[in-house]
Order: sequence, then C-alpha cells, then structure tokens
Amino acid sequence: MDVARLVELNAAYARAIDNEKFEQWPELFADPCLYKVTTAENVAKGMEAGIMYADSRGMLQDRVSALRKANIYERQRYRHIVGLPAVLGHENGAANVETPFLIVRIMGDGTMTLFATGCYHDKVATDGAGTLKFAERIVVCDGGRFDTLVAIPL
Amino acid sequence: MDVARLVELNAAYARAIDNEKFEQWPELFADPCLYKVTTAENVAKGMEAGIMYADSRGMLQDRVSALRKANIYERQRYRHIVGLPAVLGHENGAANVETPFLIVRIMGDGTMTLFATGCYHDKVATDGAGTLKFAERIVVCDGGRFDTLVAIPL
Amino acid sequence: MDVARLVELNAAYARAIDNEKFEQWPELFADPCLYKVTTAENVAKGMEAGIMYADSRGMLQDRVSALRKANIYERQRYRHIVGLPAVLGHENGAANVETPFLIVRIMGDGTMTLFATGCYHDKVATDGAGTLKFAERIVVCDGGRFDTLVAIPL
Repeated sequence: MDVARLVELNAAYARAIDNEKFEQWPELFADPCLYKVTTAENVAKGMEAGIMYADSRGMLQDRVSALRKANIYERQRYRHIVGLPAVLGHENGAANVETPFLIVRIMGDGTMTLFATGCYHDKVATDGAGTLKFAERIVVCDGGRFDTLVAIPL
Repeated sequence: MDVARLVELNAAYARAIDNEKFEQWPELFADPCLYKVTTAENVAKGMEAGIMYADSRGMLQDRVSALRKANIYERQRYRHIVGLPAVLGHENGAANVETPFLIVRIMGDGTMTLFATGCYHDKVATDGAGTLKFAERIVVCDGGRFDTLVAIPL
Repeated sequence: MDVARLVELNAAYARAIDNEKFEQWPELFADPCLYKVTTAENVAKGMEAGIMYADSRGMLQDRVSALRKANIYERQRYRHIVGLPAVLGHENGAANVETPFLIVRIMGDGTMTLFATGCYHDKVATDGAGTLKFAERIVVCDGGRFDTLVAIPL
C-alpha cells in the first residue's frame, strides 16, 4: 500500500477532529468497521474491553451527534501530531499499519496540555470507489488515565 | 504539487529556526509575500489582525535583524515538530496547503515547555528558478496566550 | 537516498524502543558504528564527551542486556514522535541526515511528561544485503538535564 495515500488518510483524520469537522470523521471508516480506544496496559493484559467502541459508521455518527448536543462544561480542542505510518503487512486485502500519535488538548483559555500519546493499530482497505478507509482503527493509548473528557474522538 | 518537495520546504523552515540560522528564514518566502501569526480564535471571529505581520522579504529580514540585536532576557530555543502537509487544492499556480505543527521551547537551563501548537495555512508556489517558496504562510495558533517572548518566528 | 526508506528506518527505530523490543534496536546499526547521546550545548562548545556512547553493535547489545537486567525503580515507557528526515548530502557512500524528534515519557501510573526534544544527526548507509543501517547516530538533545533515567535508548 502506498505510504503517501496512508499519510493523506491520516491527515484527513486529524483535520476532521482538530478543525471540529466531526461529521467528516465517520466517512473515513469502512462500514461495518471497528473503532476502539484502549490502553497499552489493557492490550498487554489481553483485555478486550476498551474506553470507547463502535462497529459501524452509524455508531460513529451517533457519537458525533452526542458530542454536538453535549454540554461540554469547558470548551476544548485537540491538536493531533501524527507520526509516519509503518506498514507491517497485508491480510485479506487490508494493510496492517501502525502509526504513532501525540494529542495536545487546548482549553478555552488557551492552556495546552499533553493529553495523550499512543499508536493507532489500523487495518486499511480500499472501498468500491478505490478510496482508502479504516476497516479497523484501534487507538492504543500509552497512558491509562482518561476522564469523561474523552468525548472527542482520539 | 509534490508532497516530498513540500516536506523538504517545511523541514528547511524548521531547521532555519531551530538551528538559529534565522537569516535563512526569509529566503524561504516569495517577495512580496504574506507572513502572519494569528490564533484560531481570531480566525473564527474573522479578525484580520494578527500577532505578527510581514508582507515582504525585507520585512522578514528586518525582523531577524531585530531579533539578533535584541537583548532577550532569557536564552531560549525552539524545536518544531511539523506534521504532514495536506494539499487542499491549487489556485493561480499556488498550492493551498495546511500543515500542523507543535513547538517546544527550551530555556537556557534546559527546561522544556510545550509552547505552541497550530496549523500553517500556506500558499506555496515555485519561483523563477523552480524553487518552492511560501507566497503566504499564516501561522494559526491553537492557543491564544502569547507574550513578548514571541520574538522568534513561529 | 530515498526519503521513504529513511522514514521506514526511523519508524523501525522508534517502534523497537516504544514497543520495548529493545533487542531489535542494535540490528538497525552498522557494525562498527557510532551511537552517542549528547546535548546541543555540548556540540556548540565542541565537547566530544556525551551522555552515552557505543561504537559497535556488541556495545549496543550490552546496553540492552543491562537494561533488561536493571531494576528500574519506576516503570516507564517512551513514545517517540519523529519528524521528517532532511538529507543534507552524501559522503563516502553514506547520507548525512538530520531528523528532529520529541520523546514523551509515560510512567507506570499513566503520567506523561515531555522528556526530550532534539535532532538525530545520522550517517546512513546500505549494508551488504542492501538494507539501510545507521553507520552513525548522534542524538543531540535540546535540553541539558538528564538523570539516571536515561537508561532506555533515546
């Protein structure tokens, strides 16, 4: 799989979230799909449960709707710095890709905090139109402390 | 526009600043040009005014001269981590590009702070010699608190 | 030298460390090689001495063994965010490359800190099998405060 296209897909993912165009986010996934947020600790322990889970584009859209309606008590935005995708292999027409990330959270008063780091574990495949989509994106966070603020997709 | 060349241009930009080769920085711009530092909040409100502004290579050079002469009360350096450029389209021979960034500030005693995150909104075009230059670089910072320390270009 | 291959080499380097597959790390170097950790301040002063030094794959392997046996008093992991490699030139069949980095340290309780930023100064060459290896990797850290926790390679 062409790394340049993976880079484009990852850039579109980060831009959708960081520019608060959340409605574009589910469009980057296949349908059905798997989206899960978990921690390196959970993965190491073989725990399946994650912090967040969706297995269809509809579930991702529901999540965005909830986010739009929610009264988030404090205004916040994210900034993703996404590293370079490493293609580890191919299976059933999908590429297995790992991509490191770092997310900064910016509060309404301009305060920035290093919010999360980790690695995306992806299965990426082309859809019928030849567009790359995430068949699977497992967000494996390095740290293990997440509060209710994980309302915005990671 | 070739992403590899955009990556090179961005790498040269970050190296000029982070290695304190400030005199190389204006050379990366077209002349005339537009260089502006602003915040996401200002952009959202449609406010034109920014924290910093220059519309020619001469103005950029003046800025570097001022920086060299200034008595910065505390020694500091930057480290840019620049994400991947997303080419959004082309207009009048220039590419519209958005590139996320994160800047760490390192003080003389080795203290590091997450100084700024944001997105470069660029118009990039080739000059007469076929070299890529920034016809426009709007530095849109996520946070909104900048003090006088914004003496070094972002 | 092909930037895509340099990107792959850097991704493999970061993954070896961040996924705690330390045994893979020496394999990314030529033998003999030069691996050194130093600071921008030391480099500016022309000081040769660094925080860490190895000139063969065996020395790198020893270091990994020591790390595996060590009782690190507090569990920790790293997350590398590696920027884009800038190829500065070629000499004796090796490419001179500079690549910025940012390292986040994640402690056992999930606490994240911005641990180090800097620039890798590399000489990269192909070995007999055509694989890219680090003939030299000088890790030039921006900050100057390193404690005994620099047990994990940077």
